[in-house]
Amino acid sequence: MRKATIVNMTSLHPDRLLPADPGTRDVARRLYAAMADLPIISPHGHVPPEWLAEDTPFTDPTSLLLSPDHYVFRLLHAQGVDLADLGVGGAQLDEAGSRRAWTLFCENWSAFRGTASRFWMESVLADVFGLAESPSAETADTIYDHIAAALTTPEFRPRALAERFNISVLATTDDPVDSLEHHRTLAADSSFATRVAPTFRPDRYLEPVRPDFAELAKSLGAAADIDTTTYAGYIAALENRRRFFKDNGGVSTDHSHLDVVTLTLEPAEASRIYAAALAGEASEDEATAFRRHMLVEMARMATEDGLVMTLHPGALRNHHIPTFERFGADTGHDIPVGVEFTRGLQHLLSRFGTSDGFQLILFTLDETVFSREIAPLAGFYPSVYAGAPWWFLDAPEAVRRYRGAVTETAGFHRTSGFIDDTRAFLSIPARHDMSRRLDAAYLAQLVAEHRLDEDEAHETAIDLVTTVPSKAFKL
Amino acid sequence: MRKATIVNMTSLHPDRLLPADPGTRDVARRLYAAMADLPIISPHGHVPPEWLAEDTPFTDPTSLLLSPDHYVFRLLHAQGVDLADLGVGGAQLDEAGSRRAWTLFCENWSAFRGTASRFWMESVLADVFGLAESPSAETADTIYDHIAAALTTPEFRPRALAERFNISVLATTDDPVDSLEHHRTLAADSSFATRVAPTFRPDRYLEPVRPDFAELAKSLGAAADIDTTTYAGYIAALENRRRFFKDNGGVSTDHSHLDVVTLTLEPAEASRIYAAALAGEASEDEATAFRRHMLVEMARMATEDGLVMTLHPGALRNHHIPTFERFGADTGHDIPVGVEFTRGLQHLLSRFGTSDGFQLILFTLDETVFSREIAPLAGFYPSVYAGAPWWFLDAPEAVRRYRGAVTETAGFHRTSGFIDDTRAFLSIPARHDMSRRLDAAYLAQLVAEHRLDEDEAHETAIDLVTTVPSKAFKL
Amino acid sequence: MRKATIVNMTSLHPDRLLPADPGTRDVARRLYAAMADLPIISPHGHVPPEWLAEDTPFTDPTSLLLSPDHYVFRLLHAQGVDLADLGVGGAQLDEAGSRRAWTLFCENWSAFRGTASRFWMESVLADVFGLAESPSAETADTIYDHIAAALTTPEFRPRALAERFNISVLATTDDPVDSLEHHRTLAADSSFATRVAPTFRPDRYLEPVRPDFAELAKSLGAAADIDTTTYAGYIAALENRRRFFKDNGGVSTDHSHLDVVTLTLEPAEASRIYAAALAGEASEDEATAFRRHMLVEMARMATEDGLVMTLHPGALRNHHIPTFERFGADTGHDIPVGVEFTRGLQHLLSRFGTSDGFQLILFTLDETVFSREIAPLAGFYPSVYAGAPWWFLDAPEAVRRYRGAVTETAGFHRTSGFIDDTRAFLSIPARHDMSRRLDAAYLAQLVAEHRLDEDEAHETAIDLVTTVPSKAFKL
Repeated sequence: MRKATIVNMTSLHPDRLLPADPGTRDVARRLYAAMADLPIISPHGHVPPEWLAEDTPFTDPTSLLLSPDHYVFRLLHAQGVDLADLGVGGAQLDEAGSRRAWTLFCENWSAFRGTASRFWMESVLADVFGLAESPSAETADTIYDHIAAALTTPEFRPRALAERFNISVLATTDDPVDSLEHHRTLAADSSFATRVAPTFRPDRYLEPVRPDFAELAKSLGAAADIDTTTYAGYIAALENRRRFFKDNGGVSTDHSHLDVVTLTLEPAEASRIYAAALAGEASEDEATAFRRHMLVEMARMATEDGLVMTLHPGALRNHHIPTFERFGADTGHDIPVGVEFTRGLQHLLSRFGTSDGFQLILFTLDETVFSREIAPLAGFYPSVYAGAPWWFLDAPEAVRRYRGAVTETAGFHRTSGFIDDTRAFLSIPARHDMSRRLDAAYLAQLVAEHRLDEDEAHETAIDLVTTVPSKAFKL
Repeated sequence: MRKATIVNMTSLHPDRLLPADPGTRDVARRLYAAMADLPIISPHGHVPPEWLAEDTPFTDPTSLLLSPDHYVFRLLHAQGVDLADLGVGGAQLDEAGSRRAWTLFCENWSAFRGTASRFWMESVLADVFGLAESPSAETADTIYDHIAAALTTPEFRPRALAERFNISVLATTDDPVDSLEHHRTLAADSSFATRVAPTFRPDRYLEPVRPDFAELAKSLGAAADIDTTTYAGYIAALENRRRFFKDNGGVSTDHSHLDVVTLTLEPAEASRIYAAALAGEASEDEATAFRRHMLVEMARMATEDGLVMTLHPGALRNHHIPTFERFGADTGHDIPVGVEFTRGLQHLLSRFGTSDGFQLILFTLDETVFSREIAPLAGFYPSVYAGAPWWFLDAPEAVRRYRGAVTETAGFHRTSGFIDDTRAFLSIPARHDMSRRLDAAYLAQLVAEHRLDEDEAHETAIDLVTTVPSKAFKL
Repeated sequence: MRKATIVNMTSLHPDRLLPADPGTRDVARRLYAAMADLPIISPHGHVPPEWLAEDTPFTDPTSLLLSPDHYVFRLLHAQGVDLADLGVGGAQLDEAGSRRAWTLFCENWSAFRGTASRFWMESVLADVFGLAESPSAETADTIYDHIAAALTTPEFRPRALAERFNISVLATTDDPVDSLEHHRTLAADSSFATRVAPTFRPDRYLEPVRPDFAELAKSLGAAADIDTTTYAGYIAALENRRRFFKDNGGVSTDHSHLDVVTLTLEPAEASRIYAAALAGEASEDEATAFRRHMLVEMARMATEDGLVMTLHPGALRNHHIPTFERFGADTGHDIPVGVEFTRGLQHLLSRFGTSDGFQLILFTLDETVFSREIAPLAGFYPSVYAGAPWWFLDAPEAVRRYRGAVTETAGFHRTSGFIDDTRAFLSIPARHDMSRRLDAAYLAQLVAEHRLDEDEAHETAIDLVTTVPSKAFKL
């Protein structure tokens, strides 16, 4: 078995995130030791597959570690840094710009105290690059130069890192019309051990409210080679592309709309709205109804093709209009709103909640639903899994709250296992490591309070990074 | 004074659920020791009174411990077990079926790790039955045989257990038209020391949306011997039955609707809707308004007859329609929704919130209201009590959150004391024991952080299982 | 530098609120020691400025410590005490009444166990008055006499106490038409070192739904010497009064409406509704739209005059109508409701969220928004700060939850620093002391779990009571 990390920095304390109480910490250390070196299963994330397919060298610290990491650049923006100075939104920085961005980050290092990004970045610098210095105005150039030099070596090319990180499964997130050529390249290459699975993410093809819906439907038809001018053709094209993803290693579909209300339209009504939408004449209410209907259709298709369905609702995208206009989407100002699952999913689950092979993983940015809705649903429906804490909630205290809110109703086996959900490739081991430490800490507390025997905790710790994600994602 | 438990298993650690920090644990041990053997007051629950009145022997492990315990069977269902195989929904299993159900449970024992059911079941097996083995595929038969044999002995008949469990008060939950014959039998029998109190639960008689409303009104009239074809008669019949419950030892009424919005209709309007409802012609809006009006009427009656009013809102019943159709209600898929108390109860509390003798205990499945609504209400209104964590929230982490969310605003005296709310008779001592351990732990933390003196904590610990429930429920 | 407290009671444990784990406590002690004696910055509160301007002696324990403290008297009311007996609502108690009120409080001391008021009152009695006894029926008279005697001495006059408490900045909350004469008196008096800043609180002038709106608009015009019979005049008068506050030391404006929905009306529409409101003819919908529009106008003015904007939404005022009718507003029954910030503020923040110098501090009584909305907003917008836990949430467990919910997304620098928000003048040091202890405890946990180095924690601890509030409130 390969090792998850090859550099063991003395600067990072081996007990990070483990409980302070000495007795509990002893238990946690033993549990963590059992998980620490197991391969990484990453069943949901955003790493571009071409990085691995083409094994492209990374160019510089900023475009690798800052520009694509919205956790990092949004907090720098809150500190008053202009996003343009960080290379956000696609603008390519020259070497001077890249170095300047890196310095801005290092100067603002104290802003990250207490955040998860602090933990991840610290791990990347120490464990991946072997750096001992903390970022600061003084160390910015040294660190920059060190990373830039490392990136020119073969050890820091994407495939070498994937191997060093001991990633056994890595899922990407892909457009339904994607050719999946990179996935096929990777699958055909027996020299590369990581299984890279595409994820079917059809959001925009299910939203007739979009001005480009007709265009999207057309491109879907082209990809599937099916006429999508009728509702029946549109459905057939979606089924076709799902099969294509499955045939190319896909295991799940992902859906991120504002809410998770579900309903089924009469076929004639669905056809009528679809036609209106193509003509740009669907009302907003019709468009919403159609999208909610299509979420149920996705579940129906899942019962047929077996792809796992994951829901990531509740982010109000592009909150700050001027930033969206200047830098585009995914630039740090998607802000959560409250979400309702119980009523919203009743229709879908009454239809498919006990269907053979159907699996539905629920994620949320609204933690109030963990104990109130998600755990009760996952504690009854054999199809429902409580998704790991996500995005703003993927941090030590929030993870602790998640386990505290979900476990007592749904146990450990009804959860999804950890999801890194990241495009920050180098932080993947740090994110999984954080999760493992936190699970060890949670289980250790159960042991210390005599709620679980240590051998059970040990078995559960290993399950959480092996059988649990494998089952939830059908790996 | 009788002892709460007669078997002290060495297999269960004496410090279960007490804080891991050694100093805090020492305090917690002392506090727990002061509470551990005090009699059990169970002012809200679902044990069938006939079990005690007739002292019927329990027949087998499955029908005693699995089929009636929705906490247990819902999680087995989530693991893929068919509810029919667990004897859920009234189907009587034969001996082979019962044994097979028990084996399914034992095989899935690991699914309960980290849940409250794990704690309760472990306590039942060890403390009530003296078993040392953990459930597993290997031990299933041995445990089954051991329990089945015990159930044939006089020590395991309901009354003997009630005495052994040291239950001083046990409230049941009863239909308004119930004859309360079992309660009268028990009250008349001086050989049985436990006070068994009925609870008036009129939900379905207050919901004109039900198709059987006219029938229910009629049966209410028959029970009260009052003509309920008019609104005035309906009100008089409800008042009559409340008095009947009170005269037969009842102390409280219980109300579990989807929301707690309150309003008062003009008498003419109430009469008009009532007449329409009897004729099956009330609209859904009218039916809802009538139910909200009737909740206020229940409060009005409470100011007159002195029965304590308890609210348990916010469960969306029978979420999975096919399971409801196959197995009926209360089969593990009631799922919580968000609930609002501040606006909802303003009308009721403006009318009766400071009325002499009126008491209103608020329970919730939506923990967001603990700090936001319930504690502020209980921290002002002399009538309002913050109900103990209930159902999905009746578990160690959730109880800890409840104390953390409620105490700082409302203190300890404005809470209800523990409610087991269970029909799982054998788990009653375990549930109260869990609550006592958690309260000891919470108080010990206050002591360890010098927020409370230990003598105050000691007094409070005892109050929480004696004067606090006695005051909240007027015992 | 002056000392924050001059009496060190042996009765109060030096480790109050610090973590129980010995190793973590050691770190917390060191961090707390670094903060404990730093001057108090109180940038939002309700102390009447005339107390300091006129240095009026306090008259008696009840009118000083009970009648104005809604945290205390609401919980006594919940225990069954009549508010009239506590001097609530302006009724002046005679000496016998005052002593009787004090006795009622002391007799009910146990009701405060586990509450923040317990901590504050204990600190006031021990640290401010040097008392060693706990309140009880037996000690009530002794304590009363001791305090009453102290209040006749010069050391207990408001200015002497402000100096003893080491308060460097104290903000009051003031009506827009206030003459600010007391603030000017204090500013002109070089013998008094505390900076006393007024806060512009225009709520009622922005609510055309009020029956006295025309009158209020008129008085606003009179204060500004501007004709407010037109919308333009009304706006000019508000701008004028804001400037007047700023010129007299004001740094912020405060806004406490039921929600924080924002929108901008067309000028003609705003004028039309304003005219209708003056005529008493605005509909409720129009009044609400106008108020939401005016909140945006306040932000617009803030970008011009530089006053910091603070929002305190979500309290449903005067929940119990009969108490409101008998005792008036602010009498203990304002009860929180859920609040939404993400959608509500999108319009305001899209307009001004990145405007130079604009600062917006968000407070809430609905803790669900800490992790879901406030931290994500403060983690992107350079203008937005996550306000300290407020009112019902200003207590140890809630503060801990706040840090746990906000820090991981927004860090420490995007928070407001502590706000005591009190009119209980003598409790100000205790409230700030509680906050400092809790921040030391939180940081110590990060250190103990190796999430932060101790030198960083030390620097952050000091920042939290110096640079953080100074920056958020532009001091």
